[in-house]
Amino acid sequence: MSSAGILIIGNEILSGKVTDTNSPWLCRELRTLGVDVERVLTIPDDVEGIARELRMMRSRYDFVFTSGGIGPTHDDMTLEGVARAFDRKLMRSETIAMRIERAQNATPNASQLKMAMVPEDALLVDAGDLWFPVVIVENVHIFPGIPELFRRKFESIRERFRGVPVLLKRVFVKRRESEIAHTLNELLEEFPELMLGSYPKIGEESFHVLLTLESRDAGFLQRALDTLLDKLPPDAIHRVE
Amino acid sequence: MSSAGILIIGNEILSGKVTDTNSPWLCRELRTLGVDVERVLTIPDDVEGIARELRMMRSRYDFVFTSGGIGPTHDDMTLEGVARAFDRKLMRSETIAMRIERAQNATPNASQLKMAMVPEDALLVDAGDLWFPVVIVENVHIFPGIPELFRRKFESIRERFRGVPVLLKRVFVKRRESEIAHTLNELLEEFPELMLGSYPKIGEESFHVLLTLESRDAGFLQRALDTLLDKLPPDAIHRVE
Repeated sequence: MSSAGILIIGNEILSGKVTDTNSPWLCRELRTLGVDVERVLTIPDDVEGIARELRMMRSRYDFVFTSGGIGPTHDDMTLEGVARAFDRKLMRSETIAMRIERAQNATPNASQLKMAMVPEDALLVDAGDLWFPVVIVENVHIFPGIPELFRRKFESIRERFRGVPVLLKRVFVKRRESEIAHTLNELLEEFPELMLGSYPKIGEESFHVLLTLESRDAGFLQRALDTLLDKLPPDAIHRVE
Repeated sequence: MSSAGILIIGNEILSGKVTDTNSPWLCRELRTLGVDVERVLTIPDDVEGIARELRMMRSRYDFVFTSGGIGPTHDDMTLEGVARAFDRKLMRSETIAMRIERAQNATPNASQLKMAMVPEDALLVDAGDLWFPVVIVENVHIFPGIPELFRRKFESIRERFRGVPVLLKRVFVKRRESEIAHTLNELLEEFPELMLGSYPKIGEESFHVLLTLESRDAGFLQRALDTLLDKLPPDAIHRVE
């Protein structure tokens, strides 16, 4: 079972000008692949801040993903932040510089060459039909902030992250959350490893609470579900999925 | 100029089952009010993790907002996490207990009374038409995760946070980002205090890059905008807003 942290870099998110759609999408992808996301953090375009957070995240999680801050302008600081987090220098990648030149059929200018400066000994992974490689430093995977590119880049390497997926059962309950809380506590005493979520829904006619039961072990999950259904009054159950 | 951190608490966000809409909404509200959001963090339902992050955030930012984890079930741990972050005990609030009893016209059960356990000396703020007060501990403001309630609670106390708003100008540019990066660097040398954002757009016909210029000082902002428009070739400017 592997863990992940996601670092979203960009003042435009914090100031509310742009909504981050990359982290919700990546959370769903990683869940499907069986990776537990344990932290999603959005911070400003600031080299020292990026480095500080990455130092912590790279040591705490199996995989770290960054989004944003890898373009040619003054506010693109992610590669420098990653380099600093690993105490590495930024080095010009001739491979990337050549790609930029070939893509535009002209000599890259200084701003474009900034995009070719990557942390020393970074891994450049070519996959899919992308002209620009994915840059990886140890367990830190660097993605662009533009959602279309973020998704295509992740998809090009997604099989690297596949583990044992989490299985999910959902029970829709026709009771208030406070009426079933003690039942949930009993269930957790019997199945302490169960990942159990309880989500009240406002404005739903047919049920009040959605319960989610999750585990990587199908037999365990079924036993927990059966136990829960035994404990709840039959007329409290709207449906099970 | 005041700063803020937002802490989103909930496994359902990290596992991709629910998309956090509270933090994008709150970022926009706080921007309008003139508050700088410097950190948005999503973490699991875990008391020690909540306490650890809040200890840092409460000392670093003027205002801290939490979302989620204040219901009656096993996975609702925010109030305990806040208490731990401030080294306070959880105490039963008779005011809240009475409100719960009155709202349902029956004696609250043990699960409901969990919602009445708040950190010692917490401030309970009644505002708007909400039956449940907003719980505040020093600079930490505790909100429910359900978006309708989150918004109504924030709106009930939003005037507490009003400062000097940030003014925004937007310039839509018909050039690639790498072609104008040097102009942006020049602009920042002349106006180092300018908040300048550069956002490439894929799939737009009429422009390639959206530039955002921001400042709390209207005169300064206008001078920076005029300087930028002078520096860019006239045919590079699609429009200015």
